[in-house]
Amino acid sequence: MPTNKKMLVSDYILDFLVSQGVRKVFLITGGAIAFVVDAFSRRKDIEYICVAHEQAGAMMADAYSRLGPGQAATMVTSGPGATNLITGICCSHFDSIPVIHISGQVNQYEMRGAHPGTSDARQVGFQETQIVDIVAPITKWAYQIKTEKEIRYVLEKADYISKSGRPGPVVIDIPMNFQRAEINPAKLKGFKPPKKPPYRDIGKVLEKKVRKVWEMLVSAQRPVIVSGGGVRLAGALDEFHKLAKLTGFPLVTSWSGFDSISFNHKQYVGSHGVYGYRSANFTVQNADVLLTVGSRLDTRQTGGRPETYAREAKIIMVDIDRAELAKRRGLTPHLSIETDAKEFLNMMLKHAPSKKELPNISDWNNITRQWKNKYPMVQKVYYKQKHGVNVYVFVKELSDQAESNAVIIPDDGGHLTWAMQAWELKKGQRMFSAFGNSPMGYAFPASLGASVALNKKPIICIDGDGSLLMNIQEMQTMVNYKLPVKVFIFNNQGYGIIRQFQELYLDRRFEATGKKNDVTVPDFMRIAEGFGIKGIRINSHIDMKRKIQQVLSYKGPVLCEVMLNSNQKIIPKLMFGNPIEDLSPLIPRDEFKKNMIIEAIKADKSLTEAN
Amino acid sequence: MPTNKKMLVSDYILDFLVSQGVRKVFLITGGAIAFVVDAFSRRKDIEYICVAHEQAGAMMADAYSRLGPGQAATMVTSGPGATNLITGICCSHFDSIPVIHISGQVNQYEMRGAHPGTSDARQVGFQETQIVDIVAPITKWAYQIKTEKEIRYVLEKADYISKSGRPGPVVIDIPMNFQRAEINPAKLKGFKPPKKPPYRDIGKVLEKKVRKVWEMLVSAQRPVIVSGGGVRLAGALDEFHKLAKLTGFPLVTSWSGFDSISFNHKQYVGSHGVYGYRSANFTVQNADVLLTVGSRLDTRQTGGRPETYAREAKIIMVDIDRAELAKRRGLTPHLSIETDAKEFLNMMLKHAPSKKELPNISDWNNITRQWKNKYPMVQKVYYKQKHGVNVYVFVKELSDQAESNAVIIPDDGGHLTWAMQAWELKKGQRMFSAFGNSPMGYAFPASLGASVALNKKPIICIDGDGSLLMNIQEMQTMVNYKLPVKVFIFNNQGYGIIRQFQELYLDRRFEATGKKNDVTVPDFMRIAEGFGIKGIRINSHIDMKRKIQQVLSYKGPVLCEVMLNSNQKIIPKLMFGNPIEDLSPLIPRDEFKKNMIIEAIKADKSLTEAN
Repeated sequence: MPTNKKMLVSDYILDFLVSQGVRKVFLITGGAIAFVVDAFSRRKDIEYICVAHEQAGAMMADAYSRLGPGQAATMVTSGPGATNLITGICCSHFDSIPVIHISGQVNQYEMRGAHPGTSDARQVGFQETQIVDIVAPITKWAYQIKTEKEIRYVLEKADYISKSGRPGPVVIDIPMNFQRAEINPAKLKGFKPPKKPPYRDIGKVLEKKVRKVWEMLVSAQRPVIVSGGGVRLAGALDEFHKLAKLTGFPLVTSWSGFDSISFNHKQYVGSHGVYGYRSANFTVQNADVLLTVGSRLDTRQTGGRPETYAREAKIIMVDIDRAELAKRRGLTPHLSIETDAKEFLNMMLKHAPSKKELPNISDWNNITRQWKNKYPMVQKVYYKQKHGVNVYVFVKELSDQAESNAVIIPDDGGHLTWAMQAWELKKGQRMFSAFGNSPMGYAFPASLGASVALNKKPIICIDGDGSLLMNIQEMQTMVNYKLPVKVFIFNNQGYGIIRQFQELYLDRRFEATGKKNDVTVPDFMRIAEGFGIKGIRINSHIDMKRKIQQVLSYKGPVLCEVMLNSNQKIIPKLMFGNPIEDLSPLIPRDEFKKNMIIEAIKADKSLTEAN
Repeated sequence: MPTNKKMLVSDYILDFLVSQGVRKVFLITGGAIAFVVDAFSRRKDIEYICVAHEQAGAMMADAYSRLGPGQAATMVTSGPGATNLITGICCSHFDSIPVIHISGQVNQYEMRGAHPGTSDARQVGFQETQIVDIVAPITKWAYQIKTEKEIRYVLEKADYISKSGRPGPVVIDIPMNFQRAEINPAKLKGFKPPKKPPYRDIGKVLEKKVRKVWEMLVSAQRPVIVSGGGVRLAGALDEFHKLAKLTGFPLVTSWSGFDSISFNHKQYVGSHGVYGYRSANFTVQNADVLLTVGSRLDTRQTGGRPETYAREAKIIMVDIDRAELAKRRGLTPHLSIETDAKEFLNMMLKHAPSKKELPNISDWNNITRQWKNKYPMVQKVYYKQKHGVNVYVFVKELSDQAESNAVIIPDDGGHLTWAMQAWELKKGQRMFSAFGNSPMGYAFPASLGASVALNKKPIICIDGDGSLLMNIQEMQTMVNYKLPVKVFIFNNQGYGIIRQFQELYLDRRFEATGKKNDVTVPDFMRIAEGFGIKGIRINSHIDMKRKIQQVLSYKGPVLCEVMLNSNQKIIPKLMFGNPIEDLSPLIPRDEFKKNMIIEAIKADKSLTEAN
């Protein structure tokens, strides 16, 4: 609350962050942000974490925000401090994560345009960089403060924008002279959020659409519900599970929605898509009504030919972002609902039909359950692998041993895919990556940010050799703040997922992926030693179980290198051009045909029609 | 030369790069660039260097370009691959370094806007990111290929733009489908460079201005010539030295022009500015005519109050960039010449007056030489320091030992400043940093890029503890490619330059700079071991000389940690508000007054006028 006392803008900024629940700010200081950082010296209710690279700082803030409940923030200096954030900002932008980034800027009188004739110079002030223009395409809002008097308005607006509608990151650029300016908070104008939410379907309109949804679901024979990342973002997990229980319909997730349903949930068929469970893909591809909540139906779900996705189903798409509903890439929802997942689910529960009105889909449920049993990710033959660790066996074992409230953060590429395929999520676990941006190097700093968010909780980081290297400087941050992150490095000597691509599409010409001594990896056990971190290496299946126990029970950070066979493949995986029910390696055609119930029905129909 | 045969766009790209003298491309492969990278498998006249982080790759290319003679290039995948480049791109943009960055992009049919309703979605294709819009403010040109047919035109145009006028980086974004498309080069349209150069003062106009310059110089009593980075960029070092010799005027450099004049050159007074030589600053501040060639007269030279810079001098500013000449921040050139440094200098030499027409400035030369002797950077008392190494003593010793064609790349902040202050450049040496952008972490990857450019030549990298950490992942690149970089780490346990700022302006509240265990540094000797690199530590002056010899004579890469006193200051340094002749610590006022000849002259004048 503003008081009637004068204060520095820098102190006001921290007041504001505290009011929004920020407890730790990820930062590197520098000339152009030193005045704001100085404000930390005057209080104990908010602290900073000094990181080693701003990119990692942005990723830490991203993970910190995902674990909530408060807002997340970074502070950086002008120029390289700010541009270093960008890949981390993209993570938040594409995955709808609110973060406030505060960048210092040169004094206003030193800036381009402050004096006549200076507008076109590449740079006027030292380390001056047009960060606002640069990040505009990858933020919900980016703004440079024009007077110290707007600090309250801008902070409130930035915070609102970052969280409202489809969330995302914001950047506030603050010239140095304003950082050390005095203001009287009581006299500052605040930001008034609009009365209407930024999505259109609310109240009566929403109610009407929900009634329509129930109509479609009630007459469905093979319905399926897809849970996307938006369900959790809306804080609607309880409501989702109530709806799931009420309907008894099969459930499928996107990767962003992965940790909304535990693997053993009896209605759960798996995550679906290009690297999905065969069971989940068959379920989606045989559905007659598909209700998707909070998923953008990305091509990693639909496959490269969206027109083949759930092609016999009436698709009901619920999304908060109009732009996602508007996409017409061959996949056209029968019913688009532009609203918040929580409002939608509450309205669904309010207008739910009675049990007996719901369709009897026990046959359909039996089929989907059979698929789930028939096509396990981790196949028995994998256990017999002699050289190196089979990654599916490893992930399964790790997921068996992980505690029920574990937080698991996989990186990108192969490691991400293996983790998402083989991890069997327990109730209460969190598991996420920067799915949309998917940079190499996210998992490790994100794990540090997660550990900071959860008061130094141990975090399971699943990383690759190339990816870990990208942000390896943060080993120092991990050591300095004693964050007990368990880093599992899947070492396959290079970029496995691209190697698989080269095998399939480039006649095994392995350029720049590690087969030709072009990409090499260090001895991670020695690197661990160098940073003073415990290192454990797993070479084969023999001592895998025991060593995983050792890593998880150790009290501090651990680097655990898991030596994979460099030919370890991603199985299954969709080949270019195929619809998602037909993952490679292809299953026998008669088995495949039997699973594609819709084809039989279509054949029947055309037969009936021909008669 | 285009032939009449069909070929892949990817192969054409490499053809083009080879034709522009690119021999090594810095890259990380990925799904969206794999087709271009695949083209390397079909030739031996161009190779790639696999880096560990694209940011470092961009910095390597920047240094590679600075050492020329050919063009420099990177290749990266879409999304994070491209955004990771940005801080490196800024280095090239602000320092006018040509580099061609080639980013892969998702297939055109997967992009935002390819299908109805998809324009407003944050992302459509996997890892799709609007890199062209993001980098527009920090490149000379950024463009996304719209059809495979324009590949020739776009490459030629990008190359031209990157090198013409004031050089800079360009980004070409190439959707995957075009990478694997076939073209017939003979049928492709090329780019026709404009007949006129992008600067206005050429031919007769330039000649007229050059005559005016000579008029001003001939009547000067205390002239000085400033060499900026533009002299070397224009390939005009010979011409500059001819002019210098012809006139016999005192010479001063900016940091970007630092390696254009050797320290022992008899006319050279030093580099000038906020952290300049007192001698150089007195020279500039007492000049009556100042001719500056290829320098933007940045605030790091002029000080925070440009109106006080060379305030009694008629300033002749020669710059290729109209926008730099147009700046009116208190400093207004008496004569602005918008042209290429080489054209200017050649015209100057062509129209040079005879020896006897030139002013006799032997007194002035004596004075500036006396200043140079009187105010050495490395003071005798420094040698007596007992605890830790005095950084000025160290840099002096290293510069004495470095061979005459050494390449020296300092990083940023304190380490950069100390290096630029105390290094005594020998003829033939190169010494540069990313002066305008000045990110932490430039020096190490730049040194690797320099070593690649010069066929595995040993490079002297001067780095800080915090800075080295920023790109420490490239240790692996150094080891893998056996690049004999000598990394000297000035370890002052945190961010020294900001600590000095906190001492001066923030009552010694040391937030986030390493005094409070917030910023910590690893044991670099153990890190070196971890990567399998030789480590040498210098703790005091006693064995400094011998250990420097050891580092420089060792055949491979070395990490040499130099343990500074954590209170090591930057001396001298300009305080906010002072004109550059009055560096702190301030010299005695009578000595200062005596040095400011212009003040005596002004007093004289006003006396005369009063009479």
